[in-house]
Amino acid sequence: MRFTSETSSDGVSEQLFTLGEIPGALWTPEGVVGTRPLILLGHGGGQHKKAPDILTLAHRLVAECGFAAVAVDVPSHGDRPQHEEYSRIAADNQARVEAGEELAPLIARFQALVARQTVPEWRAVLDAVQQLEHVGTGPVGYWGVSLGCGLGVPFVAAEPRVRAAVLGLGGALASAEDAARITVPVEFLVQWDDERVPRAQSLALFDALASSEKTLHANPGKHGEVPAFERDSTLRFFSRHLI
Amino acid sequence: MRFTSETSSDGVSEQLFTLGEIPGALWTPEGVVGTRPLILLGHGGGQHKKAPDILTLAHRLVAECGFAAVAVDVPSHGDRPQHEEYSRIAADNQARVEAGEELAPLIARFQALVARQTVPEWRAVLDAVQQLEHVGTGPVGYWGVSLGCGLGVPFVAAEPRVRAAVLGLGGALASAEDAARITVPVEFLVQWDDERVPRAQSLALFDALASSEKTLHANPGKHGEVPAFERDSTLRFFSRHLI
Repeated sequence: MRFTSETSSDGVSEQLFTLGEIPGALWTPEGVVGTRPLILLGHGGGQHKKAPDILTLAHRLVAECGFAAVAVDVPSHGDRPQHEEYSRIAADNQARVEAGEELAPLIARFQALVARQTVPEWRAVLDAVQQLEHVGTGPVGYWGVSLGCGLGVPFVAAEPRVRAAVLGLGGALASAEDAARITVPVEFLVQWDDERVPRAQSLALFDALASSEKTLHANPGKHGEVPAFERDSTLRFFSRHLI
Repeated sequence: MRFTSETSSDGVSEQLFTLGEIPGALWTPEGVVGTRPLILLGHGGGQHKKAPDILTLAHRLVAECGFAAVAVDVPSHGDRPQHEEYSRIAADNQARVEAGEELAPLIARFQALVARQTVPEWRAVLDAVQQLEHVGTGPVGYWGVSLGCGLGVPFVAAEPRVRAAVLGLGGALASAEDAARITVPVEFLVQWDDERVPRAQSLALFDALASSEKTLHANPGKHGEVPAFERDSTLRFFSRHLI
């Protein structure tokens, strides 16, 4: 793990790093040492590790909860090179949708493929970050919606260190089997008028989670219109389960 | 409006009253005057104005938010005499269910009938309580699930003083038309494994609400198993909209 820059603002330290080929960002309270809860943040499709919603949430998790937060670029996103196979599939999917094919199953198959790479990558990121003396091996949470849900469901299912997760804006097509292996508390976001994920598939993914504590929050609006008050709820959810 | 008793505990004053034939309870911060938000609490079927969930919520609204809370007995409940027609219908419905008829439509029709009486009753209670100098004409909220939702939807639709409502554990069969006239913010509770209200009907009632801000919270469990953390959310919801 190689740190490439360190800045700080308002008491929040931001360290950019690379772990092998994976570029990432780590946020922690400035000038602290000691073990603390760590939230891994999974960005959306076409986004990156420092997208506005990731940055906002990371800063609040650090400043308001004293947690650490980490995000890495998904292959073909942010500072990573275009992945040849993924790019080819994405272009092919685009053509299929224009030819009238249904979007959701294409997205689902694509995310399942990418997850085969990101699950081990993210586990390696956890390994490395938890060795830092200002993070340590405390409880781990996962937050990710849309692509961050499609990749997050197989990750949370595979990684026993994750003790609570916020997921959503994703459907059951690809990940119902993985969801059935998730038993930790989940807060699950649904946009009632989501133009990308059919409502029934969202509800089916929530239904498939094996967690005895899971709570679905649905709000009106399209895929990108999650209301700001859900971020407050995310902070409370992680505080309730990781402290 | 006639007060019949006054007690207090932990800074919360409880005044029992009758308004005509309606027995009620009013909770306010002890020893205060001045206008404050008022929440009308609608109890569940077979319950009454001082049922445990009503009492707990009323005390928290007063102690933690400084609000006033009021609850009255629904006809045939609590300190009210059996209502002859309602009792006859309830017995008839019971017999129909035992004969294999579906429960939800029977409940829906029954609640629509009772609402014709309770909507004007509750409006009269608001009129009277808002004249008290320790309540005043501040913003009004409504909380009610199950029977409190079946009677609450037509009430909230009819009463412009209500500025925010927590509803749920109810279906669309009787009240979709009323729900389509509700435009205030709503937090809507669904029990994912509700044995009394079919899931599709719960979702349809949420869908029917015309509110631009409405948020559905669904949790695993049966009709009576709403998790305790939803009460925290209720307090935050009313604080966000009524202060």
